[in-house]
Amino acid sequence: MKLYGSFRSSAAFRVRIALNLKHLDYDSAFVHLRRGDQGQSEFLGVNPQGLVPALETDGHTLIQSLPIIEYLDEAHPEPPLLPRDAAGRARVRALAAIVACDIHPLNNLRVLRYLHRSMSQDEAAIEIWYNHWIDDGFRAFELLLGEDSRTGRFCHGDAPGLADIALAPQVVNAERYQLDLAPYPTIKRIFENCMKLDAFAAAHPGRQPDRDA
Amino acid sequence: MKLYGSFRSSAAFRVRIALNLKHLDYDSAFVHLRRGDQGQSEFLGVNPQGLVPALETDGHTLIQSLPIIEYLDEAHPEPPLLPRDAAGRARVRALAAIVACDIHPLNNLRVLRYLHRSMSQDEAAIEIWYNHWIDDGFRAFELLLGEDSRTGRFCHGDAPGLADIALAPQVVNAERYQLDLAPYPTIKRIFENCMKLDAFAAAHPGRQPDRDA
Repeated sequence: MKLYGSFRSSAAFRVRIALNLKHLDYDSAFVHLRRGDQGQSEFLGVNPQGLVPALETDGHTLIQSLPIIEYLDEAHPEPPLLPRDAAGRARVRALAAIVACDIHPLNNLRVLRYLHRSMSQDEAAIEIWYNHWIDDGFRAFELLLGEDSRTGRFCHGDAPGLADIALAPQVVNAERYQLDLAPYPTIKRIFENCMKLDAFAAAHPGRQPDRDA
Repeated sequence: MKLYGSFRSSAAFRVRIALNLKHLDYDSAFVHLRRGDQGQSEFLGVNPQGLVPALETDGHTLIQSLPIIEYLDEAHPEPPLLPRDAAGRARVRALAAIVACDIHPLNNLRVLRYLHRSMSQDEAAIEIWYNHWIDDGFRAFELLLGEDSRTGRFCHGDAPGLADIALAPQVVNAERYQLDLAPYPTIKRIFENCMKLDAFAAAHPGRQPDRDA
């Protein structure tokens, strides 16, 4: 199994957590995002979309972090990353989608670059944009956690799953931009529980071999 | 079953297609997006995120279009919207995610409004932005379709599924902005096959009762 990733990519961070939770060994290929290696022909041969992560496994090259994690959960069922009931799965997938569809894509490197280069936005304006979408998504995420008895030590019950895997890297990003987490006490509590686990802590960007690249 | 949607929302469009493919009857509640009803307390009681679609079914309120469709596929298995093999499911989910994570969230009403109101971008700049992200995503989508023998009459084989459900509404959006589809011949062919099906045609924005609102 080979993971194409980068310490800078929170989507790759998600896949690292899932691989760790499943106790799966894998090789790493580091794609240098600031240098633009994701757009070079070598990597485009792996993933024509030019985005990390990509995972080579079982003779296939899988792309897109949540579909990769769903695949890992199907191919390696223990420990499960989704609840056993359909309504629970829908809830966990929706929480993950709030991060993966409604926060993270807006704050991607390629989008921030577009705002800077093609729309002449300065750093201050981009930081406001960045935190705006995190705040917008986290407010909904917090409400959905707070008003639901299925929330436990983690987003859904007392074991980590897909929603936590999506949430934790986004909180790490928020911290990098000094976003105040006080308005999201449940997110903060669950994030702290996540980061106590080796599977999450070892996947942190600061602990990746390419972090100084 | 009750769907909160809007003719303007391509995420709601996706859920309508899935409900039609499954031959499921449902009631519609129309949320007036330009007026901002999605941010009013009445709708926030349904979905704290303030986004359509939301689906009330089996005693639950489900949010986020792809998780809703995965739920429908689990609760009502025929016809299946995902392939039977794990690698096929990963491929279809990844294609859907290209649209749902990497194109559509960047071109949402709330994002276009932000660019206009908070970043003073004019209509021309916003149209370039809009088409840029569609082109970026469609180019990858087209390559992934073209180089894979699993592509058939539809994105994955000869029956419509989750990837087609994500793709067709995005093509309708592209047409609205007069994007030239010539660079994406496989997407164009599959879109045309989709729109020949009642399930897709009846879900089109132009055929929704709230289309003049």
